[in-house]
Amino acid sequence: MSPKRSNYIIGVDLGGTNIVVGAMPEDGSREIAFRSSPTRASEGEDSVVERMIQMIEDVIAVTMAETGAPRENFLGVGVGAPGPLDRELGVIITAPNLGWKMFPLRDRIQDATGLKTTLDNDANCATMGEAWTGAAKGAKNVIGVTIGTGIGGGIIIDGRLYHGSSDVAGEIGHMTIDSTGRRCGCGNYGCLEAYASGTAIAERAREALAGETEGVLLTMCEGQLPKVTAQMVYKAANEGDLIAIDVVRETARFLGAGIGALLNVLNPEVVVLAGGVVNAGEALFAPLKVEIRRRAFAPAVDACRIVPGMLGGSAGVVGAVAAFKAQTGTFATS
Amino acid sequence: MSPKRSNYIIGVDLGGTNIVVGAMPEDGSREIAFRSSPTRASEGEDSVVERMIQMIEDVIAVTMAETGAPRENFLGVGVGAPGPLDRELGVIITAPNLGWKMFPLRDRIQDATGLKTTLDNDANCATMGEAWTGAAKGAKNVIGVTIGTGIGGGIIIDGRLYHGSSDVAGEIGHMTIDSTGRRCGCGNYGCLEAYASGTAIAERAREALAGETEGVLLTMCEGQLPKVTAQMVYKAANEGDLIAIDVVRETARFLGAGIGALLNVLNPEVVVLAGGVVNAGEALFAPLKVEIRRRAFAPAVDACRIVPGMLGGSAGVVGAVAAFKAQTGTFATS
Repeated sequence: MSPKRSNYIIGVDLGGTNIVVGAMPEDGSREIAFRSSPTRASEGEDSVVERMIQMIEDVIAVTMAETGAPRENFLGVGVGAPGPLDRELGVIITAPNLGWKMFPLRDRIQDATGLKTTLDNDANCATMGEAWTGAAKGAKNVIGVTIGTGIGGGIIIDGRLYHGSSDVAGEIGHMTIDSTGRRCGCGNYGCLEAYASGTAIAERAREALAGETEGVLLTMCEGQLPKVTAQMVYKAANEGDLIAIDVVRETARFLGAGIGALLNVLNPEVVVLAGGVVNAGEALFAPLKVEIRRRAFAPAVDACRIVPGMLGGSAGVVGAVAAFKAQTGTFATS
Repeated sequence: MSPKRSNYIIGVDLGGTNIVVGAMPEDGSREIAFRSSPTRASEGEDSVVERMIQMIEDVIAVTMAETGAPRENFLGVGVGAPGPLDRELGVIITAPNLGWKMFPLRDRIQDATGLKTTLDNDANCATMGEAWTGAAKGAKNVIGVTIGTGIGGGIIIDGRLYHGSSDVAGEIGHMTIDSTGRRCGCGNYGCLEAYASGTAIAERAREALAGETEGVLLTMCEGQLPKVTAQMVYKAANEGDLIAIDVVRETARFLGAGIGALLNVLNPEVVVLAGGVVNAGEALFAPLKVEIRRRAFAPAVDACRIVPGMLGGSAGVVGAVAAFKAQTGTFATS
């Protein structure tokens, strides 16, 4: 008898900035041929989808060459994409960053590749990736918080992605932390995202810098406040800039209010923070843990690890593979 | 062959004010011999437990007489009690309203009755009751919010009670809705409970009445502000008192911030509101629904019914029976 050959699954992470594609054996034991390419959404949906399909075929070719596996050993394609989306129909309902509406992404990819394809939310996939092979590996109840331009989230209950009643669950960025507070892009007031997203962090830094004449952060942006980014704030904080440290600490307080509430409501084993915010390191995580302990019940705090993501830009692809497995069979992180 | 005889399960709801006990056939098709008796926690834990056991035996005797079922057809006792508690050990860790600490309630009842006994959180049980036979019957994803002295909560995911990693999940009253807001009894600032519990409603009404010289609410409390209760506020609002209507509307805004956040995070099919607050009727529910629609994503709002509980004081007992079934076998609401 010949040894059992591995099967492979392709993961795709469609973001507003980059498309990332890669392959994994179905046991998730390694990442093969992961690659990233700019999304260039402005070229239109057909162009983006064609490039996605080309990337998938490239990854299959490289994986076949590397492993000797024939094409029939590729079980399918898991796609993570911005939402809201309808998993059952495989349709992106609306993706503002891409300018797409009611787009049948799943079937477009399935028809072109001839491989069974599934669709899930990108923030869900990133959380699932960390829970499958990353920072929350093996945990049953996990909350993922991805902080970039906005704040995305994913919830894993009992080892499985929780989608809620209409695929909306996990919109952690849109929990109210100040009911009369800052207007959020979603129309609501006082959302966590309006205070602690990368966009909000840069904005609060600009507010704090107004009237300042020196400092690391001011030098980084060459004295031009519109140039300030969240990444600059994290870097300046790590270099000891007092204004940046203050902005990061304030961010930790806002995040602590939101994550503390989630600990009281969902009592997870692990909260994984991902996205650019991870670069803030202990300047963020130390005051964040203090704030969460101040806000949540002790047995919930004691039961929960607050950790940075381990998979970086691969999390979405790894999670899209896991989501493919979950949608086509049985799968749980533990 | 004789026809299959029904089996019965006893439910117990241990509250700070009342103990409620009753029996149900295991299919939940009806409530038998439900009765309530004052808790009288001040008499001490032994006295309370003895009275609980006596009530259980009374309910068994009445049920046997009514149905002709022999004692061996009683499968066990499900108990709902205030927490935090440890379900696995069957121990109440601490119940401030009762003054109990590390009390092995489950085994005390099991040893005295000879019936298998389970323990679960009272707010969880109330939610489970509504999901099993009440206002959320048949729904898979349900959030229960019980508003009395404090605000309790329960979460049902995929037809099962969700307890989290250390039995803390569902503490909806302790979500932050104003990160720099009112101090809560839990030590945190800006918790939903600090704004929208019965206690907080009465307090806000007293603040609003200061300096007033007439009105329905002022007449109800005989001009003595310390006498104002949340129930008076609901009644006065229903009678058209403008200050009371304002207090109820403000309550709806606070509740809407918390429940709106829960819709974005958990995307439930049903939110069941229970406790005295249900008496406020449309004076509360109408502005509450408006506020939730203002705050949560449309697909989450469209997927969710916001309803008052149907079981009243029986919810905890019905849910304790359901929790017994869940802990001793397989059980889901749908």
